[in-house]
Amino acid sequence: MKPTEKDVLNDITTWILSANKYVHEHLNSINDIRSKSGEYDLVTSIDDAVEQMLDKNISDKYPESLIIGEEKKEKDYSQINNGLVFFVDPIDGTLNLVKKHDCFAIMIGVYYDGEPLCAGIMDVMNNELYWGGMETGVYCNDTKLNPAVDLPLREGLVGVSWRQFLKNAFEEIRIAKNSAGIRVMGSAGLEFVEVITGKHIAYLASLNPWDIAAGNVLVQALGYRISSVNGNSINLAKVNHIMVANPQTYRDIRKIQAY
Amino acid sequence: MKPTEKDVLNDITTWILSANKYVHEHLNSINDIRSKSGEYDLVTSIDDAVEQMLDKNISDKYPESLIIGEEKKEKDYSQINNGLVFFVDPIDGTLNLVKKHDCFAIMIGVYYDGEPLCAGIMDVMNNELYWGGMETGVYCNDTKLNPAVDLPLREGLVGVSWRQFLKNAFEEIRIAKNSAGIRVMGSAGLEFVEVITGKHIAYLASLNPWDIAAGNVLVQALGYRISSVNGNSINLAKVNHIMVANPQTYRDIRKIQAY
Repeated sequence: MKPTEKDVLNDITTWILSANKYVHEHLNSINDIRSKSGEYDLVTSIDDAVEQMLDKNISDKYPESLIIGEEKKEKDYSQINNGLVFFVDPIDGTLNLVKKHDCFAIMIGVYYDGEPLCAGIMDVMNNELYWGGMETGVYCNDTKLNPAVDLPLREGLVGVSWRQFLKNAFEEIRIAKNSAGIRVMGSAGLEFVEVITGKHIAYLASLNPWDIAAGNVLVQALGYRISSVNGNSINLAKVNHIMVANPQTYRDIRKIQAY
Repeated sequence: MKPTEKDVLNDITTWILSANKYVHEHLNSINDIRSKSGEYDLVTSIDDAVEQMLDKNISDKYPESLIIGEEKKEKDYSQINNGLVFFVDPIDGTLNLVKKHDCFAIMIGVYYDGEPLCAGIMDVMNNELYWGGMETGVYCNDTKLNPAVDLPLREGLVGVSWRQFLKNAFEEIRIAKNSAGIRVMGSAGLEFVEVITGKHIAYLASLNPWDIAAGNVLVQALGYRISSVNGNSINLAKVNHIMVANPQTYRDIRKIQAY
């Protein structure tokens, strides 16, 4: 049976706030920093612990659900459009956590039968939880956020992931030069937060499903546009080159790409 | 007569904290947003007001001193190596102030006979004042900061200004690819702060004298290396392509450039 958005939101926000508390208490005792696929794709004792906490929370409460987690060794995408699915990124921006003790997030995105249900993104160091769903709207802690701002590309800042940016596969450099400027934060979750708070007007990056899932819910709940950079729908079973933007900027970017 | 570092520090930190209070009180009533040299080189009513406050503070207390300010129409560099000189950036990162209400700084750098004396950089939205001098060392609010970390380039994050980065005139892209990653913040002052707190290991950018002056004092007081990217000394009478880094990273960057 499909759980209510409100019930799942109550659960995930409670779990994320507990995980946030754990991270603050253990920030000065990070150990076991390991590389995964690449030299700078890091995982730490904190990623492991938060993943275990969130997995246990989810499995205890929703034993029938599927969990797709960044740190899970085996990821089964065959059932992601059936029933309740939790996408979990215990620490998004681990490189920032390790190098800066700043600018990283805890994220959960929840889907039912492949459709966005609700999500939470925790900006850990600012103690700000961005949470909401398609019916609920989106909040930062207790404050309701406004629907999408709508500005042209030239009037706003664009977040990018720098390695992707340099490849310029989707005209990122020309898009940047037609904007007010680019910024690079190193956390997909916090880049989504910049967009939903209207601080950035777009975000372009190559991302894994657990990097996208939570932000995808929140931006859609506020009326922002999100798709693959070539205009296709997001596919949460694979890496996507995404673009998220307010409606006017989305059109401006598509025009530049078509030019 | 040369004033003591301690006395000037007491003055500039008091003035910066007052200016910080003013900015917080007027953040939601920014008006008169104008472009200067380029479309995105902005100045607002807040830049104007903070400049006037700081100029009056300086002129009343040190009437013989020279002030070089971002928003001053006429900048006289002929006397910058004689006596007491204040470099003032009332708002560093005005584009961020306007678009994000976040990630901007108030900066004063003080020199005597062309030598660094003391400085303050205020991270306004975090209410953190980074201040110090060559004898005093460097503090964040009441906490003394440690001397320079010393890590190789490959182990840390590098801040860059993105337009300069794309020109790649000084091998910025190869430097980036040999680091743990790049970040783009859009505020020179806060990029200096990332270096002096050890969060970033280097910063490369093309900057005006008032963007450099305060950071130049604080990084030298902590033992970081700073120069023009070609190895020459900083010249506070003109735009400089600067590189600031911990000693080991500085050597790594110079090696890449010489390669």
